[in-house]
Amino acid sequence: MAAKQKVLLLGATGETGASILKGLQESGNFDIEVLVRPASMNKPSVQKIQEQGIKTWGIDLDESSDLMSALSGVDVLISAIGPQDVMQQKKLLQAAKSAGIKRIVPCAFITVAPPHGAMLLRDEKEEVYNDIKLLGIPYTIIDVGFWYQISFPSLPSGKVDYASVTPNNIIHDDGTAPNILTDLRDIGRFVARIICDDRTLNKYVYTFGDILSENEIYRIAEELSGEKVASTPMSTEQIENGVAQAKAALSQDPQDPMKRTFLYLSEYQHSKYVRKDNRPECADYLGYLNARSLYPDFTPISFREFFVEVLGGKVRKVYASS
Amino acid sequence: MAAKQKVLLLGATGETGASILKGLQESGNFDIEVLVRPASMNKPSVQKIQEQGIKTWGIDLDESSDLMSALSGVDVLISAIGPQDVMQQKKLLQAAKSAGIKRIVPCAFITVAPPHGAMLLRDEKEEVYNDIKLLGIPYTIIDVGFWYQISFPSLPSGKVDYASVTPNNIIHDDGTAPNILTDLRDIGRFVARIICDDRTLNKYVYTFGDILSENEIYRIAEELSGEKVASTPMSTEQIENGVAQAKAALSQDPQDPMKRTFLYLSEYQHSKYVRKDNRPECADYLGYLNARSLYPDFTPISFREFFVEVLGGKVRKVYASS
Repeated sequence: MAAKQKVLLLGATGETGASILKGLQESGNFDIEVLVRPASMNKPSVQKIQEQGIKTWGIDLDESSDLMSALSGVDVLISAIGPQDVMQQKKLLQAAKSAGIKRIVPCAFITVAPPHGAMLLRDEKEEVYNDIKLLGIPYTIIDVGFWYQISFPSLPSGKVDYASVTPNNIIHDDGTAPNILTDLRDIGRFVARIICDDRTLNKYVYTFGDILSENEIYRIAEELSGEKVASTPMSTEQIENGVAQAKAALSQDPQDPMKRTFLYLSEYQHSKYVRKDNRPECADYLGYLNARSLYPDFTPISFREFFVEVLGGKVRKVYASS
Repeated sequence: MAAKQKVLLLGATGETGASILKGLQESGNFDIEVLVRPASMNKPSVQKIQEQGIKTWGIDLDESSDLMSALSGVDVLISAIGPQDVMQQKKLLQAAKSAGIKRIVPCAFITVAPPHGAMLLRDEKEEVYNDIKLLGIPYTIIDVGFWYQISFPSLPSGKVDYASVTPNNIIHDDGTAPNILTDLRDIGRFVARIICDDRTLNKYVYTFGDILSENEIYRIAEELSGEKVASTPMSTEQIENGVAQAKAALSQDPQDPMKRTFLYLSEYQHSKYVRKDNRPECADYLGYLNARSLYPDFTPISFREFFVEVLGGKVRKVYASS
């Protein structure tokens, strides 16, 4: 029997990282180790990982010799580092190259968008991808669109607000822009398949459970709940103004993580609903492989299934635990 | 019979552009028009093109209404603009998008190298490619490696110097780095095939006649000429110093075209012989299609055939006409 692939995961305590960790564990195909900041070693979320018998490295990315120890013998390095720390990944790359890792999966895991000029977050990721290509490290970029978990409307009864990060009923523009959507819990299941697959080496891949417009999402929510959803329109002009304001605010205070987050969020809206980037046609244009075509045997959670769970009170609110 | 594709070509009087013009004419599949600067309309090289009955637009790229007239009805826009003018292409893109052109072939036509950090010239081209992707214009990137015409050594007899831009016998490092090489005259023949091919839409393609190291080139030159070629070694350190000096010189005078050219040339050496980017393995890694695999029916000129012509006094020196 072939030896299991050894995977080192960064960002395992974040939403995406936790999904990846779970997906890799479920598959049974990997020896998993986790890398966290030294200061995070005592966090409950990290201790929970250690209690599962997963080797956990508490390493400062500036300490290259420690990094080399953690990377020794690693086949696949996966980063699900937070959006504020994208550039920190640059510190890993030379060590990953020296350690001879067989594949790096840098932190992508966002919507599909062109490499430069559509979203600051995408631009920053591109810098990391370019550094990987400059070093010639084998890689796979995995984007997932937007999560179901942050793509459903509030209901008049208030019964789904327990699961919503910011309950709202906004419809952007005319609500017809289709969007690539993945259940957060399926990200790890896709990743476990993608990183074992030679076809995805040095390629971009996008995952999805459903491709839906806001109008379609609202129709499903109404049908399943029996409630009538009253939507609040947001025009293209309002979206564009939001981006301009967020840019102006960040330029006044470039190190402020909240201002940075507001820009990320307003640019997501702009890219998804004004530019309409987060679509299969755009992914094809940009050279992405379609994970559903690669893995026809795997049936991800549909948005309809997800929303039945939401209505049943069974869904965990994201960003709720630390 | 299907209508011919209408092609608008920029840079038709340069070495690459002239090869493309000839290749398109030879194929007979295209209605060709040419775009030049207004000031170039009276140049002999442009008048020669007009004398062949090719419609020639003398247009300032800052005049968007003139540009829209030239782009109206164009299927394929090909740019073979010079390396000093790469950024000028940005002025074309919005008009190309508005005109609904079916494919843009921006000025690539260089060696294979990663998108950022290996060569300033490649970095600048990447900016243009990113703008194309931001606008979502269908594109094809065509790189050709280095030309045979600037890849052969001087002989002791001096008999091939008539065809050499800068006769020399330098061997970089140990002379073993393989390089993607295309006969300048074949570039247009490849382009004529690539731009009619749906498989190359939104893709990177590399062409080659031969893949050869300097040692192999010198061996062929010795065998065909019967002369012994004495080579002058250039070490990795010397190549790196050359890049550092060229960067320092350009930073002192960023607008100086000669200093810019020196940096381009020293970075070509570094990328080809130190980084060893200009290889099929690197092209595969970067996602390029192989034009030889796409067009097995087309046999490009081999380096051996080219050098027989050089020895026979039959080759035109490049960069010799204006």
